[in-house]
Amino acid sequence: MRLKIIDIVLLFFCTTGFSQNYIGEEKEIDIILENSRKFSTYVVSANYDMIGESYTNDAKIFPQNSRIIEGKDSILNYWRLPDGVRTVHHKLMPEEIKIMGKEAYDYGYYEGITKTANGKERTWKGKYVVVWRKEGGHWKMYLDIWNSTP
Amino acid sequence: MRLKIIDIVLLFFCTTGFSQNYIGEEKEIDIILENSRKFSTYVVSANYDMIGESYTNDAKIFPQNSRIIEGKDSILNYWRLPDGVRTVHHKLMPEEIKIMGKEAYDYGYYEGITKTANGKERTWKGKYVVVWRKEGGHWKMYLDIWNSTP
Repeated sequence: MRLKIIDIVLLFFCTTGFSQNYIGEEKEIDIILENSRKFSTYVVSANYDMIGESYTNDAKIFPQNSRIIEGKDSILNYWRLPDGVRTVHHKLMPEEIKIMGKEAYDYGYYEGITKTANGKERTWKGKYVVVWRKEGGHWKMYLDIWNSTP
Repeated sequence: MRLKIIDIVLLFFCTTGFSQNYIGEEKEIDIILENSRKFSTYVVSANYDMIGESYTNDAKIFPQNSRIIEGKDSILNYWRLPDGVRTVHHKLMPEEIKIMGKEAYDYGYYEGITKTANGKERTWKGKYVVVWRKEGGHWKMYLDIWNSTP
């Protein structure tokens, strides 16, 4: 009997994905999750073309200590790293995603590691809210705002 | 003829609200704008009951250097100021609001002035993204994230 309860508890955590909350058609949610994972690989591989493709044409990003940055060229200027500096780790950990027609909100935590030209690593982490929008049949980021966690 | 062109330009700016972009039923947008203005008055009057009422029961706020704060009690703990400290000015300046069924995204800039116990004023400003949700027939904030501008 005891084992069965453990099984049920395990099943609960497996199906709910450890308290993550995804609201909307599963196929669409999976695409957003996949695009979110791909975005991290683009950041780590410094694939600026694909970082640009991850945002809608009229996207806005909200970096700390900056005005709102709008449009792909300006957004890529933000993401472009100086020579010798690399992001060696980037991960988004969504807590909740809800699809509302052609838009979806997505919030959660992120973490990353930047390697500077002299080989030193800087670890950073924070939380984010993204508004995704389906543009040309693809889920892309329209609003992207974040700030740090302790 | 020259005056007429000026009239047209003035009319353009009046109807577009100086480049603000509101997408959705006008009546609903007006309620969100009104709730946004009211929220500032609640902050300035330290009306914590109504600050609480401005958020959904399951709202999340994302202050700088903090984990995601969830639920009204924890959110009010964040907003509650120490004795003698007052927010004497608080203003939200939305750039764009779009209603998507029972949710709406809203982004823009904010500014405020805090008066400390010794009478000194501290001015602060930044940008924000809010996801509003209609709960019990009222538009309330569900996600509220911000960070500073230079």
